[in-house]
Amino acid sequence: MRERMPPGALTTVGIGDDAAVVVAPSGSVVAAVDMVIEGRHFHRYWSSGHDVGVKAAARSLADIAAMGAVNTALLVALAAPGTLPVSWAKELAAGLAAEAGRAGAGVVGGDTASADVLMLSVTALGDLGGRRPVLRSGACPGDVIAVAGALGRSAAGLALLAAGITEHAALAAAHLRPQPPYDAGPEAARLGATAMIDVSDGLLADLGHVADASGVHVNLGSGAFEPEEALIEAAASASRADAKRAAAQALNWMLTGGEDHALVASFPAATQLPDRWHVIGEVREGAGVTVDDVVHEGPAGWQHFFPPGE
Amino acid sequence: MRERMPPGALTTVGIGDDAAVVVAPSGSVVAAVDMVIEGRHFHRYWSSGHDVGVKAAARSLADIAAMGAVNTALLVALAAPGTLPVSWAKELAAGLAAEAGRAGAGVVGGDTASADVLMLSVTALGDLGGRRPVLRSGACPGDVIAVAGALGRSAAGLALLAAGITEHAALAAAHLRPQPPYDAGPEAARLGATAMIDVSDGLLADLGHVADASGVHVNLGSGAFEPEEALIEAAASASRADAKRAAAQALNWMLTGGEDHALVASFPAATQLPDRWHVIGEVREGAGVTVDDVVHEGPAGWQHFFPPGE
Repeated sequence: MRERMPPGALTTVGIGDDAAVVVAPSGSVVAAVDMVIEGRHFHRYWSSGHDVGVKAAARSLADIAAMGAVNTALLVALAAPGTLPVSWAKELAAGLAAEAGRAGAGVVGGDTASADVLMLSVTALGDLGGRRPVLRSGACPGDVIAVAGALGRSAAGLALLAAGITEHAALAAAHLRPQPPYDAGPEAARLGATAMIDVSDGLLADLGHVADASGVHVNLGSGAFEPEEALIEAAASASRADAKRAAAQALNWMLTGGEDHALVASFPAATQLPDRWHVIGEVREGAGVTVDDVVHEGPAGWQHFFPPGE
Repeated sequence: MRERMPPGALTTVGIGDDAAVVVAPSGSVVAAVDMVIEGRHFHRYWSSGHDVGVKAAARSLADIAAMGAVNTALLVALAAPGTLPVSWAKELAAGLAAEAGRAGAGVVGGDTASADVLMLSVTALGDLGGRRPVLRSGACPGDVIAVAGALGRSAAGLALLAAGITEHAALAAAHLRPQPPYDAGPEAARLGATAMIDVSDGLLADLGHVADASGVHVNLGSGAFEPEEALIEAAASASRADAKRAAAQALNWMLTGGEDHALVASFPAATQLPDRWHVIGEVREGAGVTVDDVVHEGPAGWQHFFPPGE
């Protein structure tokens, strides 16, 4: 799989020795690890090898961006049954390489082993460029909450896949191959973001982590969420819902759907935000997360495992 | 498991945010990942949770040392069945923490998920202190080959465990909880080592990687290997062998047994080596690895999976 991997601009020693060496220009390294496991985070009957490679890489790469850092390198541990087709493994490598390349990272190391379960553990490394890391704990009363990237598309895509609906293929693709806006992370840090997280569990759940870590209350305004037409159509198809219920379902996906890996951050209220950052709420004294001043009804987080038909 | 983990002297942001931040004092980071999987790298009927934690950490920490770097941080991904006893998981955390601490590393991040298989993926980070990394590819004809750390003890311990022999508990312990000489790695780099690797597959197999990468021939002198008495006794017990065959088996364990994670390196011949570095051979022009100028008979590498009774 080695030759399919991007070397990375900052890689001094890549795959093939005891360990890799990656330049850390600003004198510190940002690091995160995430696993994806068959049956829990993906299904081979929906996901190609390429899809799984993209998703496994994106989950870890997004964690680095959410600290305000630029991705530099990935290390990939792959456990797979001996029955895994070689063609599938090649696609997996291509997906990992493609998403690492999109984030500007090299794939610098790895390990492979046989196991009864197909699983990947991806470690991502990044560099802060001299900036302070943007933690979950820095949100201050008076800050605004803004988001960059898609919301609800992965959840809509999963619902379509589970219902066997082949329309709105772009939403299914968003579930199978999330495309986090990596460069929005360092951008937010440069703009003075006070706290940031990537939306992996769902917007409300992840803002709950920020609220807890910062000791603040986050209130969102539902008027800031305009579900795109495709989301509403997907909700109508997947849930056989009328227009009103479909709009509510689409909003619910935006508030609680996970795995899009959008970035959500708090900024001082006077910050001039570029167009891709959408203000959706504000930080107050207190605790917890509300929408229009009330606690959102319905599931607050993402169910990773969702057997088709349930 | 968080509170059981050593924070690490160079950790700026530890467990609990999207990613960790670790100081990289010399402006680059050394990184390696290794997996351990139940049934393949360990068995729960021999290994306690503490043992597995030590072994999983040691495998990755030794890779960093083998580059000549000092360990700074570990990230641990754990997949485990829901039936895993909490007490076992606590022991696992304690073993990881103990071995990370022995190497001077913090445990700065992780991920957990449920799976049908118990497996750990451990990523180790390290710092070179301004030194160049010691690669596998730098051995030169005329260099000496020297080793620091134990050889053959893990293989002897495995043979004893497989035979159900409870004597020589220190050898079984060496198999269950390898103790690589981490600080010998940076020491070798400071002494001018031209190539280095940790003995994970077996001395001859790993020197084969060095010979291949460096384009040289490595010849070892059997006279440099004096099996300790316990190894010979273990060979006699586990193999029901006479004294001569037991001595041969002990030597074979030293040459081909893996998982002790000793460090083996090449040095310019004039290097003044500290006592713990034992000269065992020399580098010549050519290819391959020999002992007393002949290719060693018998298995050159380590069989990771060894069903008891076979």
